[in-house]
Amino acid sequence: MPESKLHELVSLFSQDDVRENSVRLAKEHPADIAAALQETEPARAWPILKEAARPRQADIFGYLDLDFQAQLATIMPRADLAAIFMEMNADDRADLYKKLTDEQREALMPALAQAEREDIRQLAAYEEGTAGAIMTSDYASLSPQLNAKQAIDVLRHEAPNKETIYRAYVVDADRRLIGSVRLQDLLTAPAGVRVADLMERNTHAIPVDADVEDAARKIARYDVIALPVVDAQERLVGIITHDDAFDVMEAEATEDFQRLGTVTNLDSSVATATVPMLYRARIAWLMLLVFGNIFSGAGIAHFEDTIAAHLALMFFLPILIASGGNAGSQSATLMVRALATGDIRISDWGRVLGRELVVAILLGLSMAAAIAVIGVFRGGRDIAVVIALSMIIIVIVGSMIGMLLPFILSRFNMDPATASTPLVTSIADATGVLIYFSIAKAILSLP
Amino acid sequence: MPESKLHELVSLFSQDDVRENSVRLAKEHPADIAAALQETEPARAWPILKEAARPRQADIFGYLDLDFQAQLATIMPRADLAAIFMEMNADDRADLYKKLTDEQREALMPALAQAEREDIRQLAAYEEGTAGAIMTSDYASLSPQLNAKQAIDVLRHEAPNKETIYRAYVVDADRRLIGSVRLQDLLTAPAGVRVADLMERNTHAIPVDADVEDAARKIARYDVIALPVVDAQERLVGIITHDDAFDVMEAEATEDFQRLGTVTNLDSSVATATVPMLYRARIAWLMLLVFGNIFSGAGIAHFEDTIAAHLALMFFLPILIASGGNAGSQSATLMVRALATGDIRISDWGRVLGRELVVAILLGLSMAAAIAVIGVFRGGRDIAVVIALSMIIIVIVGSMIGMLLPFILSRFNMDPATASTPLVTSIADATGVLIYFSIAKAILSLP
Repeated sequence: MPESKLHELVSLFSQDDVRENSVRLAKEHPADIAAALQETEPARAWPILKEAARPRQADIFGYLDLDFQAQLATIMPRADLAAIFMEMNADDRADLYKKLTDEQREALMPALAQAEREDIRQLAAYEEGTAGAIMTSDYASLSPQLNAKQAIDVLRHEAPNKETIYRAYVVDADRRLIGSVRLQDLLTAPAGVRVADLMERNTHAIPVDADVEDAARKIARYDVIALPVVDAQERLVGIITHDDAFDVMEAEATEDFQRLGTVTNLDSSVATATVPMLYRARIAWLMLLVFGNIFSGAGIAHFEDTIAAHLALMFFLPILIASGGNAGSQSATLMVRALATGDIRISDWGRVLGRELVVAILLGLSMAAAIAVIGVFRGGRDIAVVIALSMIIIVIVGSMIGMLLPFILSRFNMDPATASTPLVTSIADATGVLIYFSIAKAILSLP
Repeated sequence: MPESKLHELVSLFSQDDVRENSVRLAKEHPADIAAALQETEPARAWPILKEAARPRQADIFGYLDLDFQAQLATIMPRADLAAIFMEMNADDRADLYKKLTDEQREALMPALAQAEREDIRQLAAYEEGTAGAIMTSDYASLSPQLNAKQAIDVLRHEAPNKETIYRAYVVDADRRLIGSVRLQDLLTAPAGVRVADLMERNTHAIPVDADVEDAARKIARYDVIALPVVDAQERLVGIITHDDAFDVMEAEATEDFQRLGTVTNLDSSVATATVPMLYRARIAWLMLLVFGNIFSGAGIAHFEDTIAAHLALMFFLPILIASGGNAGSQSATLMVRALATGDIRISDWGRVLGRELVVAILLGLSMAAAIAVIGVFRGGRDIAVVIALSMIIIVIVGSMIGMLLPFILSRFNMDPATASTPLVTSIADATGVLIYFSIAKAILSLP
């Protein structure tokens, strides 16, 4: 939505013009209305939302952030909450349920129908980060004995309550998944053909306890609208839809991004995160890195005599150690993202290492040539040799650290993105200090 | 696909067992076959692909990387290429066409039907990065005068040649987009109701020259299967499907990732990038940052007398300047991603700045407390005061640089991800040197 339209809606809603609000609530896209409502306080948002027709209320409510939904839930009359709850998609409803307090849950449950109660309890029971936690039970299923015409009738009847009927899942008498059929294949088939003969048998499914990212990646890979989720007995228990997979991939990319920049476990959106949340997400790594940098300091202290004898060496210190860190950051960035997208696998490390070494040597040589020119002017020929040689080795070592660290972390089942650019920089800094002053000491025959 | 299955397919294909290959080519998912074929040389992949039935060949071909497709195109007999070309989705076909040499294009075009030739020329004409460049012309459209039954018949008839019929676009006599209708609404409506009365009039569309990321973000926002694309006269010219939008978002996240780590314009996948490609993507920023770090070196040189009088100051230099860079990297990472996802807008900078300042002060105080303890042991009380004070100011300044730089770049229409962590670190390093030694000089009354 363009920012101007958001502002228009926000300012409109703030005017309490009930009639105009009703028109807009019916006309604008629920996602846009939700975005505008979120710009106000929950206590002001509810009276506006209340004016919308009931099924529309649920649509709009479903587009609100989960935190905002939970805040609204504490304000709304219980009957309204229950009514919206019944209309929501099964997966969104289960997510909200998990956010409610025990008190709210107890107040809400009696107002719901038996089927919804069971469904919520089941969906809410799956662990965070599993396929079960984001799947919905609003899928369409068919028996293989039906013919195409009967199947279309079933789907037509079920359509209003299902997230998608464009692919229906075929299950046997025990609800075991045996295939799937596209609505368009049912439509183009002669009326008498059986579902069993139309369905694709090789339907990709994912276990209910599988990692949610694996599910999302599978949807992206096979370009499907939804992915069926099965339990240990191969029984169909839900589906994950393409739009939820999209959200998972976005959230995952954000998490990797933040981890690469040493911001960890920021559960909230950056827009709404509070000061304590941001502080907690940042302080641990900053502290750890302080202690990491003590090694660089200790390295410098160790070479104090060398430095005292040749203070000009200090001029080149930041350039040299930063170059190792920068080259390493590049390598780490490339590897972390390639491992996350599945572009590169752990088993590829040998092949990638060889190529990285060649690239690093070329980069090191180029940068050594550049810095040698500065070195001649600033410190003479000997200094130029020292810094050029140091540059080559530091860039190669930095690149190797940046490339290998994500693989090593993966190997030990840690997130490769833990090989953050600041971590790689810290390690490269400390080794850079040692390399530089060792070479200087040897070549300049310093103490 | 699990790695084991990929290996199985790859080793199977390498055995030239034509009969077994045919079975697998018919049975496995085209995406899996494509992944296995890409592990071999194009010259070996074509004889295997040739064994598949023709429509299946096109399916598999469509899942290959564009580069691999182009390589195969140079090897395959022209008649086979033309046949596959005719079967491909319109958008994939146009992408491949752009990769072909003039010679290949001229050889191919006469073998295609007139309609396909026109379609390819049109789709291939749109600029990279625009909605037009990734849209497909395989959409289903309806006239508003049709009734539900007639509309279903039209869609049923068109289904085999369309990417999706689940949402059909309603156009007037001049092909202007006036709405859209879901197949499930057509199915559940009484047969005689007109499309005009069933369609949603408020269909979100995007101009053909709009940024492709805007299109993808709109699909994610409104949870739709496809987004219609219109020309300047509001005429429907194509649709962008959810799976292509997914790929765009993935590619965009990867580009931002790499840019944040100062790897620029790496057009190829990391897995297949050559040494020269990687070198070119990395050297420019590394060189630029070398010159950036000269400022840090110059800062140190400026304070040479101060350092000579109190060499112990050098021990804390890496810790202090790295802390500013690390805090800045965190802020930049948070802002770059939040601006990319639309979580935060440029106009929010003031609000974000206030919060960032509070967080930075808290972080600076915590880290100052930690380092002061080390300072007392290592250099005495005066040193402890100097480094604690420096730490607070350096962390605050570093955070501010990291937070503001992405906003400033955005303001000047540059990609905020250009505020890479190494760039922020370089700037924070140079200011850190100045802050540290200025404070040391003042408090320790050094020269």
